[in-house]
Amino acid sequence: MAGTNSERELLTGGPAIILVEPQLGENIGMVARAMANFGLSELRLVNPRDGWPSEKARSAASKADHVIDGVRVFNTLEDAIADLNFVYATTARERYGFKPVRSPVVAADTLRAKFTGGENTGILFGRERWGLTNEEVALADEIVTFPVNPAFASLNIAQAVLLMSYEWMKSGMEDHGATPFQPIEQRPATKEELIGFFHHIEDALDARGYFRPEGKKPKMIDNLRAIFSRRAFSAQEISVMRGVVNCFDRYSRTNPRGSTADEEAISDDSRE
Amino acid sequence: MAGTNSERELLTGGPAIILVEPQLGENIGMVARAMANFGLSELRLVNPRDGWPSEKARSAASKADHVIDGVRVFNTLEDAIADLNFVYATTARERYGFKPVRSPVVAADTLRAKFTGGENTGILFGRERWGLTNEEVALADEIVTFPVNPAFASLNIAQAVLLMSYEWMKSGMEDHGATPFQPIEQRPATKEELIGFFHHIEDALDARGYFRPEGKKPKMIDNLRAIFSRRAFSAQEISVMRGVVNCFDRYSRTNPRGSTADEEAISDDSRE
Repeated sequence: MAGTNSERELLTGGPAIILVEPQLGENIGMVARAMANFGLSELRLVNPRDGWPSEKARSAASKADHVIDGVRVFNTLEDAIADLNFVYATTARERYGFKPVRSPVVAADTLRAKFTGGENTGILFGRERWGLTNEEVALADEIVTFPVNPAFASLNIAQAVLLMSYEWMKSGMEDHGATPFQPIEQRPATKEELIGFFHHIEDALDARGYFRPEGKKPKMIDNLRAIFSRRAFSAQEISVMRGVVNCFDRYSRTNPRGSTADEEAISDDSRE
Repeated sequence: MAGTNSERELLTGGPAIILVEPQLGENIGMVARAMANFGLSELRLVNPRDGWPSEKARSAASKADHVIDGVRVFNTLEDAIADLNFVYATTARERYGFKPVRSPVVAADTLRAKFTGGENTGILFGRERWGLTNEEVALADEIVTFPVNPAFASLNIAQAVLLMSYEWMKSGMEDHGATPFQPIEQRPATKEELIGFFHHIEDALDARGYFRPEGKKPKMIDNLRAIFSRRAFSAQEISVMRGVVNCFDRYSRTNPRGSTADEEAISDDSRE
């Protein structure tokens, strides 16, 4: 899979990701990569255990250098969120409290609305082993939690950041069904093209005695046409199938194309 | 964050995840963990480079043992998908072809509908370095791709599996705003409780000469009430705020609670 590509648009901005006392440089790097994947760029660290900068983090970031280079380190969570207007705390564990609890979809939509309105926002993620303290959660405006398997709720920190970054990206899309690339356009066949194919194959089969007994011919034709009417073929697909019928019709195993005196080519309109 | 918890429901089932020639055991383990997080359980490997079983995979799976124990290994992709009815291929790179290309949301909804209809489904993920070959993609029914940052499109395999697993979980939810736990219910304050608080704080301030000059008193009261009307307080919050006003009203820095002959407690209705 491709890495950074300077010809393509590099998305930045969005909420700050704030890691509270992260322990492993590798995790910080994987967080940076996950952010970059989905267009976030501002990473803040509160008291990273192994200090900063971290070569392990840079290596694990897989070239998300713009995120790593922009990291800011703070001594306290209060300092790290001082300039923000609205902050989410992520948690996997149920917290008994009064703060609103949001799904990632709702949280991302809320962050997008506030970002668009000019507010500075952030999302807090806790330590690898035990997350955020209640006092840290208390500094946030709202809680966001993930719809996990009840018996297997443990998400690692980079995965939690990935999901929020992904929902952030989606919150900016008008259509969640949109994809970055599309299949090659194919013109759907007209009914004339489809019926031309029916006649072609039916004629070739009829000449071989396929429709026996004669009384069953209408039903056999019905069945055959039903198969080829089940989905809408493209004009090109019809053309390919006519080429196949042509090939069966004109040549045999003992008398293949090119082996006979009759060097008539497969007709142009049915070749692809 | 919590690991497996046998008292809670363990979600299983859903589409098979098929890794084609995965290289690192750690990645296979992280894939298993991501699947378990969002209720998938069937993992198939095509020619894992370092063989199977893998202690590195089990360790990285962080106790997703039910996924690791159920792994099935195949020599070819054809064998791995033989019993399936419908298969997605994941790709980060644009593929020039005719296959439908879907977003994760649409793909997960499609998989959910087919799963509910009794079909066997699967999702193919390629090698860490270079994904799936065109021939492998050709074996799938449709393509799924992620809405990534155009200049930083490289997702690692466990992250790609995590996103599809997460969307699978969401496709089974009626409401994408639902959360596994909710805040403690608080009864909203009545207007009588709110107005009682207004009178309480205004009386205490008036006794201290806060409303000066007298002519500005109505405007000052307006401003004060506007602050406390901006959002709906709960009955409990009103009670806490009355306790605060009471404390300011009855005691001073030089004469704090408990230091005076007047040992009258803060009235019950305003304590929390």
